[in-house]
Amino acid sequence: MKKIEGNVKNHIEIEEIAKYIGNTIKIHGSIHKIREMSNFSFIILRTKRQMVQCIYSEEFSKFPLTNIKEESCVIFSAEVIAEQRSKTGWELRLIDVEILSEPVEKSTIIFNNKIVETSLETLLDYRPITLRNEKQRAIFKLQEGICKGFREFMLSQNFTEIHSPKLVYSGAEGGANIFSLDYFGKEAYLTQSPQFYKQMMVGVFERVFEIAPVFRAEKHDTSRHLNEYTSVDFEMGFIENFEDIMNMETLMLQYTFNLLKNEYINEINLLQVKLPDISFIPSITFTEAKELVSREFKRPITDMFDFEPEEEKLLSEIINKKYDSEFVFVTHYPSKKRPFYAMDDSNKEFTLSFDLIFRGLEITTGGQRIHEFNEQVEKMVSREMNVDLFESYLMMHKYGMPPHGGLGLGLERLTSKLLNQNNVRLSTLFPRDINRITP
Amino acid sequence: MKKIEGNVKNHIEIEEIAKYIGNTIKIHGSIHKIREMSNFSFIILRTKRQMVQCIYSEEFSKFPLTNIKEESCVIFSAEVIAEQRSKTGWELRLIDVEILSEPVEKSTIIFNNKIVETSLETLLDYRPITLRNEKQRAIFKLQEGICKGFREFMLSQNFTEIHSPKLVYSGAEGGANIFSLDYFGKEAYLTQSPQFYKQMMVGVFERVFEIAPVFRAEKHDTSRHLNEYTSVDFEMGFIENFEDIMNMETLMLQYTFNLLKNEYINEINLLQVKLPDISFIPSITFTEAKELVSREFKRPITDMFDFEPEEEKLLSEIINKKYDSEFVFVTHYPSKKRPFYAMDDSNKEFTLSFDLIFRGLEITTGGQRIHEFNEQVEKMVSREMNVDLFESYLMMHKYGMPPHGGLGLGLERLTSKLLNQNNVRLSTLFPRDINRITP
Repeated sequence: MKKIEGNVKNHIEIEEIAKYIGNTIKIHGSIHKIREMSNFSFIILRTKRQMVQCIYSEEFSKFPLTNIKEESCVIFSAEVIAEQRSKTGWELRLIDVEILSEPVEKSTIIFNNKIVETSLETLLDYRPITLRNEKQRAIFKLQEGICKGFREFMLSQNFTEIHSPKLVYSGAEGGANIFSLDYFGKEAYLTQSPQFYKQMMVGVFERVFEIAPVFRAEKHDTSRHLNEYTSVDFEMGFIENFEDIMNMETLMLQYTFNLLKNEYINEINLLQVKLPDISFIPSITFTEAKELVSREFKRPITDMFDFEPEEEKLLSEIINKKYDSEFVFVTHYPSKKRPFYAMDDSNKEFTLSFDLIFRGLEITTGGQRIHEFNEQVEKMVSREMNVDLFESYLMMHKYGMPPHGGLGLGLERLTSKLLNQNNVRLSTLFPRDINRITP
Repeated sequence: MKKIEGNVKNHIEIEEIAKYIGNTIKIHGSIHKIREMSNFSFIILRTKRQMVQCIYSEEFSKFPLTNIKEESCVIFSAEVIAEQRSKTGWELRLIDVEILSEPVEKSTIIFNNKIVETSLETLLDYRPITLRNEKQRAIFKLQEGICKGFREFMLSQNFTEIHSPKLVYSGAEGGANIFSLDYFGKEAYLTQSPQFYKQMMVGVFERVFEIAPVFRAEKHDTSRHLNEYTSVDFEMGFIENFEDIMNMETLMLQYTFNLLKNEYINEINLLQVKLPDISFIPSITFTEAKELVSREFKRPITDMFDFEPEEEKLLSEIINKKYDSEFVFVTHYPSKKRPFYAMDDSNKEFTLSFDLIFRGLEITTGGQRIHEFNEQVEKMVSREMNVDLFESYLMMHKYGMPPHGGLGLGLERLTSKLLNQNNVRLSTLFPRDINRITP
């Protein structure tokens, strides 16, 4: 019998190297790049979060340079030398190397330059290696920070984290855009949103959140659609009005951008991210927004019930110019276009709902939900829905629910817009679209 | 145009009531229970995390008791009175009430007693309301704490959080236990584990983790199987040997149980959880374990390649008695029974792998993976696998990977065993099994 006591042996982490000036340390990583100069070489070591420049020279290195290859995994012995010209205040002189593994081939896709110069298709086809690029991987480190910010904020506001099922017996929003599968002889679906479950859990914990995958069988092939994405969802009870939800989202974004600035500054600098000012977010109604865009850009309004993506972009432009904000809430969407659980305004043609548009793209949909049983059943009947199919959903309304509402935010869309990318796939680790289910 | 500035109006939270002794406050919640006494009544208010006892009396309450019902959602005005006999040091005298909503019916399932006295079937059928029971919901608050502990620990160890796809082009482990679906005319699968993706991401970030749903189409109908569960996965590069992974898990559990003790003490007390001592975890080999159980319980060994659930229980008993540990690592499982990516020991009949057994139930499977391309291809060929189907998986090996390994831990199983439950469904928010896909 052995005893496992939790002794994990670690080599030195980059953040602590400065403490070892004048000493010889061990450091491990993948050899990202070898740059041979006239009488020495730069060896760029890829570590967990940073690229570390090491110096190889026959003067002090006790191994032939030919022993190491790009993408070999190694443990270096290195001397830490004080060096004022370096940003870090030190440089690493390689003394010796232990080679842990070697690649069998050199990739034809070059990923160890500043950027991966290739098509989007190739970038995604070769994800397992193109993600090794410094900037490519920084996107997903930053995305980690966004999740960290959201979670920390929500826990600080007494939201409870939940894990709702992804295999469901009926779709939340209904419609054709849903993946179905055989579940032991029954038909099941992949959830389009945790909507029903987060509402149920409001009756239990008052405030809940979840960050988890959702699935949409939409046949759109655009730069902003994914068929699987990570949805950041929260739902809160005892709201006074639907603006409470927008206020909570504003706080969440403020907290998160602040966290990114404090804890992810390396990635922000590397990716040249301009964090948006978010001291307030302008809010206008759907009808006002439609008219504003029509007036300012002299466009006729063709669809009074929905926003075209082009209109979202134009609206963002106007709001940015007028109010110096890259975010805008659009509220009071037409009832026709919102789901059966959306609470109507006093004017029943509109709902107490909102979208959040960021740099021209909708990143959040939210709103107040119906909490009274009879009101909910009436709205379902008026839409000719089969109420019997929703027995377990309506259970919460029947036995008592507080006024409540919430939202869903697309993690990849937010990341992508934050980075001013032109395609949401660039902020998706392994994107799924109508043509792609690999790697 | 309105400005949304992040002003969320909150009523007073339970944790801060003590500050308001002598004052009248507003507090909101659901009326969990009304207990009429001879000349006053106890009103138990269900708030986000705690049940709060309030006192109603015609002496000071300005509304008739008949105005409120169990499961009404209300805002109370209440006077905070110092009261030494109370554990909190105060009591709440109800002055007035604002009723926000009312149930249309009283549930026949009683959920506002200490426990919900009903069958497992009914408990799960009525999840939206049975979860309103104080002990039922505490299970999932505690589960939140487990996730919080894992994440905090992993981030502290420089693991990067990832979001891998759940819709995949082939199963990680292969076999028949996989859900399939039509994906725009192609066949796709629901992931059984993030195995391939977390390995790929080791090549990128060295250390990664994910807490996300996985899907198993297993036809088992047992107290320990779920067809969808939450998998806690991590994978780490540059390991010296596979014990590094067990050490990391031990640290993770130590950190997490400590966090539960500090931040979830109310739930621990309410559910009478006995947190296990985890200063070390005994580790024995698969072969030794089989022989030990056989010897101690005089059971013949019928299957030399696998553990029966009964053997896991018996092994736990022995280890607990001998080494005073409720956890035990079993290492070196036979190659035959482990997946194609498992690294073999020097004796190729066994693998550098382990399971972690907690109170008689396997909660983790992990091990070292093959990192050399040729070694991996050879093992696949020897198993008569079609190597061409794994092109994007093998890409990482081809272009260089460090020695690495990792594990997957079942969140619901850990929670369930921590609570000494006899069925994992009790620690699953909305369980999915061969007979259940609702609510």
